[in-house]
Amino acid sequence: MNIPQTSFPRVVIIGGGFAGLAVARGLEGKELQVVLLDKHNYHTFQPLLYQVATGGLEPDSIAFPLRKRFNNIENFFFRLAEVTGIDSEEKEIETSIGNLHYDYLVIATGSTTNFFGSTNIKKYTMEMKSIPQSLNIRSLILENFEEALLTSDLEERKKLMNFVIVGGGPTGVELAGALAEMKKGILPKDYPDLDIRLMKINLIQGADCLLKGMSPKASEKAEDFLIKLGVDVWKDLRVFDYDGDMVKTDGTDNFRAATVIWAAGVKGAAIEGLESECVVERAERYKVDEFSRVQHHDTIFAIGDVACMKSEKYPYGHPMMAQPAIQQGQLLAKNILAELRGKPMKPFAYNDKGSMATVGRNKAVVDLNKWKFQGVFAWFVWMFVHLFSLIGFRNKAVVFLNWVYNYIRFDRETRLIIRPYKKRNKYSFEEQES
Amino acid sequence: MNIPQTSFPRVVIIGGGFAGLAVARGLEGKELQVVLLDKHNYHTFQPLLYQVATGGLEPDSIAFPLRKRFNNIENFFFRLAEVTGIDSEEKEIETSIGNLHYDYLVIATGSTTNFFGSTNIKKYTMEMKSIPQSLNIRSLILENFEEALLTSDLEERKKLMNFVIVGGGPTGVELAGALAEMKKGILPKDYPDLDIRLMKINLIQGADCLLKGMSPKASEKAEDFLIKLGVDVWKDLRVFDYDGDMVKTDGTDNFRAATVIWAAGVKGAAIEGLESECVVERAERYKVDEFSRVQHHDTIFAIGDVACMKSEKYPYGHPMMAQPAIQQGQLLAKNILAELRGKPMKPFAYNDKGSMATVGRNKAVVDLNKWKFQGVFAWFVWMFVHLFSLIGFRNKAVVFLNWVYNYIRFDRETRLIIRPYKKRNKYSFEEQES
Repeated sequence: MNIPQTSFPRVVIIGGGFAGLAVARGLEGKELQVVLLDKHNYHTFQPLLYQVATGGLEPDSIAFPLRKRFNNIENFFFRLAEVTGIDSEEKEIETSIGNLHYDYLVIATGSTTNFFGSTNIKKYTMEMKSIPQSLNIRSLILENFEEALLTSDLEERKKLMNFVIVGGGPTGVELAGALAEMKKGILPKDYPDLDIRLMKINLIQGADCLLKGMSPKASEKAEDFLIKLGVDVWKDLRVFDYDGDMVKTDGTDNFRAATVIWAAGVKGAAIEGLESECVVERAERYKVDEFSRVQHHDTIFAIGDVACMKSEKYPYGHPMMAQPAIQQGQLLAKNILAELRGKPMKPFAYNDKGSMATVGRNKAVVDLNKWKFQGVFAWFVWMFVHLFSLIGFRNKAVVFLNWVYNYIRFDRETRLIIRPYKKRNKYSFEEQES
Repeated sequence: MNIPQTSFPRVVIIGGGFAGLAVARGLEGKELQVVLLDKHNYHTFQPLLYQVATGGLEPDSIAFPLRKRFNNIENFFFRLAEVTGIDSEEKEIETSIGNLHYDYLVIATGSTTNFFGSTNIKKYTMEMKSIPQSLNIRSLILENFEEALLTSDLEERKKLMNFVIVGGGPTGVELAGALAEMKKGILPKDYPDLDIRLMKINLIQGADCLLKGMSPKASEKAEDFLIKLGVDVWKDLRVFDYDGDMVKTDGTDNFRAATVIWAAGVKGAAIEGLESECVVERAERYKVDEFSRVQHHDTIFAIGDVACMKSEKYPYGHPMMAQPAIQQGQLLAKNILAELRGKPMKPFAYNDKGSMATVGRNKAVVDLNKWKFQGVFAWFVWMFVHLFSLIGFRNKAVVFLNWVYNYIRFDRETRLIIRPYKKRNKYSFEEQES
């Protein structure tokens, strides 16, 4: 990998998401060598992926080049690599570009879509965990509309204009809202010869309310907002199959749709190599103690979505969101430095600042510790917090400009099919795979 | 294609570039049905592709959704389609989405890269005529640098850091300049462990000067600017082969390089179907009269890059640039309307407003009719003209913001590998094709 061996201990961080960046920042310019690995050369601001998928933001404005973040930092190395294994005895990781020795290993690989073992669902639905995946959704939505124009088979047209989003968490809610706004303001103008009433947006939630982790008031209000925007919200309904044509549920309602977006679950992106007892079954998150140390491994840490730190308040670990990831990363940097200096580590205590979700223009829900509110003000708070959290001045400026433009003009201008997405429906899938 | 047959005559326009858009705009709301076809759902502002390729602008800011341009226009239809043939007897075109009858056909398909028949060059070099191609170049430049870090073979590293641009027209000059600025301001910071002196930028020009169509002063000055930026300019040198490893020229200089960008020629993107005598050999442009009518065909017109309108002043047709395309399109709209109203058509006379090219920060060359100037002021003129020519307020604003940011910060922040480009070198090409 061509990384010099120095007298400084080497901290290897896998993943440049919120958690990984927070540790790396905390270790800047200290008596350590830091190696950051990521399979992309940029940090992705995941909370805004749904706006890329629906033509509201350009992909490049929610990505930040990782190398730039660490320009001029001594003893810092970035490598574009995929990590495939961990050899904890040899203190070595295996990657797509060779092996690397570590003194401390920080696993911050985040999460990946959970299809709960269904190969069909994995094959035919769309994911939205990365920028390329969001661009695929953007292309597919537009390609479906172009195709719907051409067919004279009404059932086929209905299928092409039927969108099913599975999962009523923040991702599903935000995406459904954004699609509903496209239906309202954009698509009827772009496709005047299509009957926009044929377009359906179905949001399917397994639980009995949307936004499970938020307050009952937020759930209700989000549902209310979505219904007003014309989204069909289905609760207490679970999807168990999709063959590229029909979404099958455990209720009496099935859906014929060309586009199904799977936002029904995530799991930790654990890496091969550690003993199976270190990993929580199914959730695939590493069991860590209050210092983010992976069980049985003194020099291996896991933070963010891939870590499961159980506590009285969080018996299943912290929520898989940006805030715990950032806080764990910040503390871990301090703890690694403390250990190096022979000082005791501090245990992690999550400072829950609250959560929020946006449904559309002037419509958001915010739960703070003691204050819960919904509507226009919540929407401005949501925008401010997200703008502020984006990395980089340019990104902030471009996103702000787009939001102002979209707000004033009721528009979403990046409705571009830059790379067509070849649909993996049951007729063409085999061809495409070969 | 699901386009209604009305009593209005139907004008079919193939291509939503500068020429096609100009005709379509001129025919808005008239007693005609207008059908615009394009293989992309957006208009590409080609003069700024090189800035996308070098991380200075996001792709979405130089693309404009074609449907949006024609929102609320009566009797206008857009279809995403590739046109594969013309049947002039039946007055019908063949496309990827079916056949379509026309009363008037406007061919505005632009130009495509001319590899002058070399399959090797076509296989192994990079083109830059579309947004996806520019993004491929952006990815490849960055992938090469990531790879150069990993190898300990010096020859291999040199090859990865050697960039060859073939063609000293505006595209080649602008791209070489932008790459040189990356070498100066960005890459040494991003890759501090690479010796930036190994990076070479070679601009190879077959003729005896750069920017052939411009004034001698502009050519000289552009070359001067490039040399100051550290570009190696090779004149009177022709490339005849590239096998993914070695660029072979007709001189004594050959170049071992991992990246070769082919900007050495374009040809018209003529469509199959018209008699061969309508098309200029090799150039593949349609021979048209002064009303843009394709030879022997009263109702078929060709405009822009794909048209070759010979005149005393332009014995080989007009230059393949935006200005003639726009002017031909504007006049053609008027002429079609004139013919419909039984009035005579007006012949085309090109109003040459001059030409310009930019090399880098504060460095551009501008040739106006009576005024030729170079340097800082030329650079501001270049920026103003390009900003003004972009379609859409949002695009203008985002590009302006990026330029201001890049100017103040000496930066180019969209150095992102969103979709990795798998290099088509001679070792991996077969695998990739399958």
